Amino acid sequence: MTTEASETGMRMAELAARSGLSVATIKYYLREGLLEPGRRTSVNQAVYSEVHLERLRLIRALATIAGLPLSTIRDVVHSVAADSSVLEAMALTQDAVVGSAGSVAESDTDGAPREAATIVDEVIRARGWQCEPGSPAYVAAVRAVEGLADEQLASVLEHIDDYAHAADAVGRTDLHTIVEAQTRDEMIRGAVLGTVLRRPLLEALVLLAQQHHAREMLSDRSHE
Amino acid sequence: MTTEASETGMRMAELAARSGLSVATIKYYLREGLLEPGRRTSVNQAVYSEVHLERLRLIRALATIAGLPLSTIRDVVHSVAADSSVLEAMALTQDAVVGSAGSVAESDTDGAPREAATIVDEVIRARGWQCEPGSPAYVAAVRAVEGLADEQLASVLEHIDDYAHAADAVGRTDLHTIVEAQTRDEMIRGAVLGTVLRRPLLEALVLLAQQHHAREMLSDRSHE
Repeated sequence: MTTEASETGMRMAELAARSGLSVATIKYYLREGLLEPGRRTSVNQAVYSEVHLERLRLIRALATIAGLPLSTIRDVVHSVAADSSVLEAMALTQDAVVGSAGSVAESDTDGAPREAATIVDEVIRARGWQCEPGSPAYVAAVRAVEGLADEQLASVLEHIDDYAHAADAVGRTDLHTIVEAQTRDEMIRGAVLGTVLRRPLLEALVLLAQQHHAREMLSDRSHE
Repeated sequence: MTTEASETGMRMAELAARSGLSVATIKYYLREGLLEPGRRTSVNQAVYSEVHLERLRLIRALATIAGLPLSTIRDVVHSVAADSSVLEAMALTQDAVVGSAGSVAESDTDGAPREAATIVDEVIRARGWQCEPGSPAYVAAVRAVEGLADEQLASVLEHIDDYAHAADAVGRTDLHTIVEAQTRDEMIRGAVLGTVLRRPLLEALVLLAQQHHAREMLSDRSHE
């Protein structure tokens, strides 16, 4: 982590301006223990470093972009700060982001038909993915398969391997964007924003690709 | 379209049972002109065919899965029934589904910074996609790029070609699932459900792929 800036340091006003958060909000995060105290320079003055700024950017991403509650943000921030592995912090972050998505509010796989879970397990096996068995992401996949089965969309499920192939490329690219980060805080922030903000980008690009392939595959059927 | 079943036909009760809609709802669709009247067999009896059932399944998908308002459903259904091309019906359907997603509620590209549009244009050009220039999908892509630029997520935008490559595979697979349908109604229903219900499936698969690639790319950084 860069510590050069901590020699001189930032006043609270500059920290607020650079993080895009109000002084009141930053003081709240300090009281709640989400942000480490600054270095005291007098009785009522402290200076903050680039490390503080990065932490605030991470908290802001978790709060405003991912919409996580404070208790969850605390867990993620403590995991990033603690001596746990980056992989553990990543897993916790993903679980928090997926868990808050609503679609998997109650993560009871017990209620899910065995068939949907079998389909997801087979996809994971076929791709050779090493996954967390009961994670919110896994539950979300089972739920999605159930939703398709309910609507008798067999054609989508028949092509699930093609979707998994494309998903593999997306997940790999996500990780490439994340590992380029210089610090843990930036890496976790990248994981959150990458997932949350990349989602609408990918979906919009898929729709544009649909337009193209519709033109190619359907134009000969124009007036059937 | 199959017309064999119309020889005998279904009573209203059977149509309700097979479509999963109440008799009251079906009568409402009949009054609103979304569903063609059945064949009269007596003063107060009519029979319905498989064609009616397919139309009801399409309306149900547009209403309950895509959450579209009745006026939009009318436009889509009339486009499917009219002598317009399948491609036109598809484009109208996609616009309706994307437009209702909320993220592109006001589709003014005027407010969008030129830079974001340039990035999207470059992706479309690089992939050789034939797209609708001002479509809701295009606006959604520009908005997504803006959102990433606002958060200074340059790393995601640097990999946008990789995401576009994966999106192309997804869009092509979507079309494959759609063109397998036997009738226009089923094709448009497939386009709606394929997009709306395939979305959470793809995103969940991406998360599982993230878990796998995180393990591969981050495990050596465990305690840095």
